[in-house]
Amino acid sequence: MAVIVQKYGGSSLADEEKIKAVAERIKKAREEEGKVAVIVSAMGDTTDELIEMAERITSEPDPREMDMLLNTGEQISIALLSMALQRLGVPAVSMTGSQLGVATTEKHQKARIIDIDVERVNRELNENRVVVAAGFQGVTGEKEYTTLGRGGSDTTAVALAAKLDARCEIYTDVPGIHTCDPGLVPGARRLEAISYEEMMEMASLGAEIVHPRAVELASKYEVPLYVGQALKQDEGTEIGAESEYLEKSVITGLALSEDDIQVNLRGVEASEEMPGKIFTLCGRADINIDMISQLLNGGSTMQLSFTADKSDRDSIAEIMDKLEQELRISDWWLDEEVCKISVVGPGMRSQPGVAADVFNLMSARDIMVKMVTTSEIKISWLVPTGSEEQALRAVAEKFDLTYE
Amino acid sequence: MAVIVQKYGGSSLADEEKIKAVAERIKKAREEEGKVAVIVSAMGDTTDELIEMAERITSEPDPREMDMLLNTGEQISIALLSMALQRLGVPAVSMTGSQLGVATTEKHQKARIIDIDVERVNRELNENRVVVAAGFQGVTGEKEYTTLGRGGSDTTAVALAAKLDARCEIYTDVPGIHTCDPGLVPGARRLEAISYEEMMEMASLGAEIVHPRAVELASKYEVPLYVGQALKQDEGTEIGAESEYLEKSVITGLALSEDDIQVNLRGVEASEEMPGKIFTLCGRADINIDMISQLLNGGSTMQLSFTADKSDRDSIAEIMDKLEQELRISDWWLDEEVCKISVVGPGMRSQPGVAADVFNLMSARDIMVKMVTTSEIKISWLVPTGSEEQALRAVAEKFDLTYE
Repeated sequence: MAVIVQKYGGSSLADEEKIKAVAERIKKAREEEGKVAVIVSAMGDTTDELIEMAERITSEPDPREMDMLLNTGEQISIALLSMALQRLGVPAVSMTGSQLGVATTEKHQKARIIDIDVERVNRELNENRVVVAAGFQGVTGEKEYTTLGRGGSDTTAVALAAKLDARCEIYTDVPGIHTCDPGLVPGARRLEAISYEEMMEMASLGAEIVHPRAVELASKYEVPLYVGQALKQDEGTEIGAESEYLEKSVITGLALSEDDIQVNLRGVEASEEMPGKIFTLCGRADINIDMISQLLNGGSTMQLSFTADKSDRDSIAEIMDKLEQELRISDWWLDEEVCKISVVGPGMRSQPGVAADVFNLMSARDIMVKMVTTSEIKISWLVPTGSEEQALRAVAEKFDLTYE
Repeated sequence: MAVIVQKYGGSSLADEEKIKAVAERIKKAREEEGKVAVIVSAMGDTTDELIEMAERITSEPDPREMDMLLNTGEQISIALLSMALQRLGVPAVSMTGSQLGVATTEKHQKARIIDIDVERVNRELNENRVVVAAGFQGVTGEKEYTTLGRGGSDTTAVALAAKLDARCEIYTDVPGIHTCDPGLVPGARRLEAISYEEMMEMASLGAEIVHPRAVELASKYEVPLYVGQALKQDEGTEIGAESEYLEKSVITGLALSEDDIQVNLRGVEASEEMPGKIFTLCGRADINIDMISQLLNGGSTMQLSFTADKSDRDSIAEIMDKLEQELRISDWWLDEEVCKISVVGPGMRSQPGVAADVFNLMSARDIMVKMVTTSEIKISWLVPTGSEEQALRAVAEKFDLTYE
């Protein structure tokens, strides 16, 4: 009999009524589809509330103690969801990350899964129980509790599915993956199927429905993924190997990110080492560089622009201040009034001209393209804040991303 | 260097400010007294809130899942208190019941401690860390989480102190043990020292400051106990072996319980089996019988009265209804308008006349004694609800239980 792993996020478990509704859904899946293992997040805003409690105690909580604290969030969910299942006559057993056998590295707050010992899960499933296990958490060889950091629950679900050779269904409060955000582009179409690769690009671009880390893991172990709405029977999106969707339209989706800042250097003495120096210092400060654009001005000066996350604003300014002397940078500035738009689609490989379309669409609307970067299946460009909706709608219309 | 075990109850940890204050107290104890292991309860009303969450899901939550749920309460406390200690520069490490090595029986919600494996506690203490461990919880051989039921955190603290050969300090929100409730008897004296035996009698009589289960354990392993106020440096009460306090006054303390109901049977055919039958059925229904009084009316009928907890009212009524036919009981009734008053004192053994004093004091005030029971160090009697304060004050005055 098939095994499926279902993952329910915090918003689907925000109160007791929602937990009961999720239990009904699990009951149905068990009757219709086979054995079910469920991975849950902490209820609603529980994790944020726990973090606030810690912050009222100290501004620098110990990572080990934070993990001890945060572990309680999912533990409450698994107990309540198990009770809700039992109330419906469905045998269920809750398991913490430790009981689930999630062995992790020792890095508190950012642990990585080493392996899952599925002996007990299999035993419980074979005894016809629904396993309700805590996502996001694990345990080290020293029996210390850890958490997996961002996207942790999705990652637990996919890792468990990989070990059980199961299909993994991720339930959230949005109905699957769309070509673009329906809030920004009215009529945005839902995608019935998408490849791991596209999903990774889409997810890291702001369509944060499944964490890229989990998609990467699913891709590696070829776990069939499904993303849908927890409390509705609406159709969601299947995520699988790319080969299954080869003949699709050029563009799969369109994403917007408002979390970037652009760093610009002008009139810098041309030097091969300069960009490397800057990015090395950024790397040491844990700053992720995203887009990079470099231009030699014919002569001896060059121009460099790059983007990073808005939250790294101050660290970047500090690094640039430090380098001003050393690298003889006469003119540099941060631009925070930018939005990043990206189109993703495997069809781009075989269909040149998407970049041209983008530039033409922007210029026809007087939208300045402040920077651009391309990959095999993606084009991203920066536009000034305020013009993003117009830009998104133009692209969506051109590439047929909306219904009608 | 000495080791002390300190236990802080939920009301002493009700919010972040109180947690910080407790951390200051622990810091001081560590500087002045030696190694400190701390046992904590869940913050404030957390346990009740968790129970309410479960009740919103189902009226009959599975005991295993309740334990899974309730375990989170103390886990939050240990993490936050450890952070508060670290903030003060005190090295601290939190430990769940499972990490503390509290091995229990498998009876969920009412588990009993089998043993505590103090290897890790000792290691942490030897590395000069304060151990902040969860009370109330443990783990079975199958790695299932359990809770210890009522008085669980006190019991964990005493059990740990027994294993570490340590003194055990129980901190609550009241200043030690008094001769009687200062709210009922103005000027009630604080007791500086009291024996385990007296404390057990006092605690089970309503002076619920330390749970009798914990006192019993302390007595068994001769753990020096201290009860005091968490957030004040007021003196508390030492609890130890009786021999140390032999020459004390006749009466140590006076307690009031309003949780009893009296069951009365009149004009029953005298039969040796009858009381046994009733109490067997009560035992099977988990009803604890407290006072018993039986009277043969010369001839062939008898009278029987006994008391039990108010919460068992309906179960008792059911049993009595069932037995009405079988035992030919013509006349029985429940009296809920009763209060139980008890005087406790080891001096009573060598000082006869306390019972006489009690009856005289009551009769002088026209207070009906509805039932009485005596032991070596205790006399308890029932009075009608409404007369309890007058009764308490009369006894307190007679036996010198107040200041002045």
